[in-house]
Amino acid sequence: MHVRKAIGIDFGGTNVKLALVDEEGRIRARSRFATGQASSQAAWLDEVERQVRQLCAAGGVSRRSLAGIGVGVPGFVDFERGFIHDLTNVPGWTGVRLRDLLQERFGLPARVDNDVNAMAMGESTFGVGRAYQHAVFLTLGTGVGGAILINNKLYRGARHMAGEIGHVSIDMNGIRSPQGRGGLEQYIGNRRIVERTVRALKRGRKSVIRNLVKNNLDAVTPEAIARAAARGDRLGLEVFDFVADCLATALASITYLIQPQVFIIGGGVALSGSILLDPLRAHLNERLSPFFARHIEVKLSQLGNDAGVIGAAVLTLFE
Amino acid sequence: MHVRKAIGIDFGGTNVKLALVDEEGRIRARSRFATGQASSQAAWLDEVERQVRQLCAAGGVSRRSLAGIGVGVPGFVDFERGFIHDLTNVPGWTGVRLRDLLQERFGLPARVDNDVNAMAMGESTFGVGRAYQHAVFLTLGTGVGGAILINNKLYRGARHMAGEIGHVSIDMNGIRSPQGRGGLEQYIGNRRIVERTVRALKRGRKSVIRNLVKNNLDAVTPEAIARAAARGDRLGLEVFDFVADCLATALASITYLIQPQVFIIGGGVALSGSILLDPLRAHLNERLSPFFARHIEVKLSQLGNDAGVIGAAVLTLFE
Repeated sequence: MHVRKAIGIDFGGTNVKLALVDEEGRIRARSRFATGQASSQAAWLDEVERQVRQLCAAGGVSRRSLAGIGVGVPGFVDFERGFIHDLTNVPGWTGVRLRDLLQERFGLPARVDNDVNAMAMGESTFGVGRAYQHAVFLTLGTGVGGAILINNKLYRGARHMAGEIGHVSIDMNGIRSPQGRGGLEQYIGNRRIVERTVRALKRGRKSVIRNLVKNNLDAVTPEAIARAAARGDRLGLEVFDFVADCLATALASITYLIQPQVFIIGGGVALSGSILLDPLRAHLNERLSPFFARHIEVKLSQLGNDAGVIGAAVLTLFE
Repeated sequence: MHVRKAIGIDFGGTNVKLALVDEEGRIRARSRFATGQASSQAAWLDEVERQVRQLCAAGGVSRRSLAGIGVGVPGFVDFERGFIHDLTNVPGWTGVRLRDLLQERFGLPARVDNDVNAMAMGESTFGVGRAYQHAVFLTLGTGVGGAILINNKLYRGARHMAGEIGHVSIDMNGIRSPQGRGGLEQYIGNRRIVERTVRALKRGRKSVIRNLVKNNLDAVTPEAIARAAARGDRLGLEVFDFVADCLATALASITYLIQPQVFIIGGGVALSGSILLDPLRAHLNERLSPFFARHIEVKLSQLGNDAGVIGAAVLTLFE
């Protein structure tokens, strides 16, 4: 039997990752290049074409036999037109018809979506989301991204911009940003987590985090804080308890509003596993009535760093 | 041409309102009885049957020609089974198969939904919601109710409980309730609005509200506060500005999360019109980025007190 295959591209701020993915979600070949290495759209397309040729060779397939090319990008996209409004951290990609450019270049169907939607498609098709029809996906990193699955389909909102969980307010009198006040990512974005920890260290709090970063406070990362917490470090545990409680506030609001079956959490901070998940579950139970608490699950992403390329391929394999 | 008609019932904590509604949304006949007047399920069904007979006579239709009977109830309902889990302020209605009881009694198709969903169906079919496919409905009263329309269909969530906007948190360290912390209705439910105003009056604030209630602080109502605000009363305006800002915080979060096209607001407090709507629009703009602010509308319910009976009839006329 012929197994269909597609190219999935995870266009990140640091790296562009590519994979040849089959319709069972298996990665047959993979490659990557540094985002900074292709500084124009033309150079990007050239590099993608070169690597797609290599992936096809490695996977033993012809380019013409591919189901298509899917791309997840870090920014604002009109999915239906495959049009990039703007990429948050990558200059030179404002107002780009990337879907059309890819279709012209490769003569294959192409799809372009934002990276969190792509990840959500990967998780819901081949990862922990398979068992659910109504799910909310989150990525915790520099910012907090979100995607909403309703009746097994991505819900994109009236103008393709739904799922901006990072701007859900947890405090009407809270931290101001261009997006409003008290937005979740103003409290649990990577930089905020680090700032909170470094402030405590500078005030003289004892913590093994100091040892882990060899007293260089510029080297504090969420990973170092999580490692300290895993060893029982008080400060590390406090910081993760605060992050979990902020996140629980937003997840409780989302549960009351759209009542998904599950929250699926990915991204860097999520790699800390039970260090985040245990206090998150406890705070979520405190912040929901028993009925709602009983009927909502919280899971970590299963595909990890591959969710992006697999999901991007899924956009052309199944949608 | 035959115009289809149905019975819509708005089962409230104080009154049960009934109407004979045609498929163009017109009320052909109406009646009501006091909720307390029918204290058992059997008495309620008897009274409904008596009034339906009168409505049919008044409308010149036979009972057998009706498309069905729809009911909106103030509480938790499993719509698919037409099963009432519990009614918030009406004793004796826990675990009731109301759809089946109605079908058995009348020999007609019946539907049972919660009252906010029924109102939303009315507004989206015949009211201000006609122009929109993605809308969020709110009712402001004792509590804050909500209903979500996605692609012209009510979205009920994984367990029929979506739309609990009253429990969306606007302050993670805010007022505690059995549903969590900082829930919107802990700030803008009717009683909270009155408490806030009475506290200020007791502290000695000058206000025409005192005159409107003839110095009887037990007689302060949201309507009196709105009337004072409409006359330029400082305290009245401050209270409505606070209510509007709390509401704007929740609506901004909802906009970032699911990006509807419009919020449609009904219920008692909404009758204050621009007294609420003007500061709400201003605060919502402050709490959203320009793109999101530009693409979200806020409207008042058009059908007013009839939204409930019309919407309940719609449940059987079209769904």
